[in-house]
Amino acid sequence: MNKIITIGREFGSGGRELGRRLAEELGFEYYDKEIIAAIAEKTSMSQEYVQEVLEGKPHHLYPITIGQSMFIADSFYIQQEQSIYLAQSEIIRELAQKSNCVIVGRCADFILQDLKPFRIFVYADIESRIARCIARNSDAEKHLTEKEMKKQILSIDKNRAKYYDYYTGNKWGDKNNYDLCINTTGFVIKDIATVISKIF
Amino acid sequence: MNKIITIGREFGSGGRELGRRLAEELGFEYYDKEIIAAIAEKTSMSQEYVQEVLEGKPHHLYPITIGQSMFIADSFYIQQEQSIYLAQSEIIRELAQKSNCVIVGRCADFILQDLKPFRIFVYADIESRIARCIARNSDAEKHLTEKEMKKQILSIDKNRAKYYDYYTGNKWGDKNNYDLCINTTGFVIKDIATVISKIF
Repeated sequence: MNKIITIGREFGSGGRELGRRLAEELGFEYYDKEIIAAIAEKTSMSQEYVQEVLEGKPHHLYPITIGQSMFIADSFYIQQEQSIYLAQSEIIRELAQKSNCVIVGRCADFILQDLKPFRIFVYADIESRIARCIARNSDAEKHLTEKEMKKQILSIDKNRAKYYDYYTGNKWGDKNNYDLCINTTGFVIKDIATVISKIF
Repeated sequence: MNKIITIGREFGSGGRELGRRLAEELGFEYYDKEIIAAIAEKTSMSQEYVQEVLEGKPHHLYPITIGQSMFIADSFYIQQEQSIYLAQSEIIRELAQKSNCVIVGRCADFILQDLKPFRIFVYADIESRIARCIARNSDAEKHLTEKEMKKQILSIDKNRAKYYDYYTGNKWGDKNNYDLCINTTGFVIKDIATVISKIF
């Protein structure tokens, strides 16, 4: 059976970097944004739209007329969200069956539970997450103050939690759903990856 | 500064074994029951009594007459509990300043917070903890059914949580208070110790 590592992570905690480094150290495949591209292909939706849905971004309610019936777009959106989740599940299962891999986010710990993945959750205190985001300093975040950054971090995590809880029936970040929970506050992700890679 | 590892643990999760093995692998001092002996010496109380208080075992209310005043033993007990906590804090600080060490339980993560210990919390699912306790099979537990064992495990953890939350103001087992949370379900403690020892 392939070795599978899933990584859940608080925004700004360095979970994605840890996943990437673990995959590098171990010579495992690494899947993150690739999954979005594959979902887009499978569902014929745009990558941007798939990403928006997966991030649980707020959407507008508007009526759609099909034949003589009028639907509220909300239920249409929910249907699309669910087909994206289904496509995502299929893709993740295909990838996990192909080779040893690290999968970041996407409820992979739950979707692959019968394949017994090693489930990691990465977190950090809010100050350290703000500092990491500021250091990362992407174009979209360049103009944000510390306070705005904090608000953005908490909002992204709220959406992640909502999405995870809805599809898995478990609680996002609850240590009982993971094999290892790593607090990255004060640590260098590279060093953590070196130690954790020894597990596999 | 000395390297200090503190280990909080759910009863039956193998936290004590992990602590002992970590100390062995690293050549660190290991403190667990030694602390109780030291508290007993410092407070002139018996080891059994100190242990009972630290485990938060239920105590009886009875009146004590000192001079012409009558006290309810409950407040006397609370005072004793607090002096035991103070003695414990002093002893733990002395030990941590002596050499590199692993300290199991006893709110050591909180007591030593200014010395930046590496804080581990060890847990496991309830079935695995029952199985571990049955395998350990101490004399006192030999006669227990699985159901009784479960009740005992949950009761001990309830007391640990109450004690920890009272003295630290934090929540026992909340991942935000630890650097690493390890779910031992399905793993061999010896293997975990070998990997984790690489951190130090």
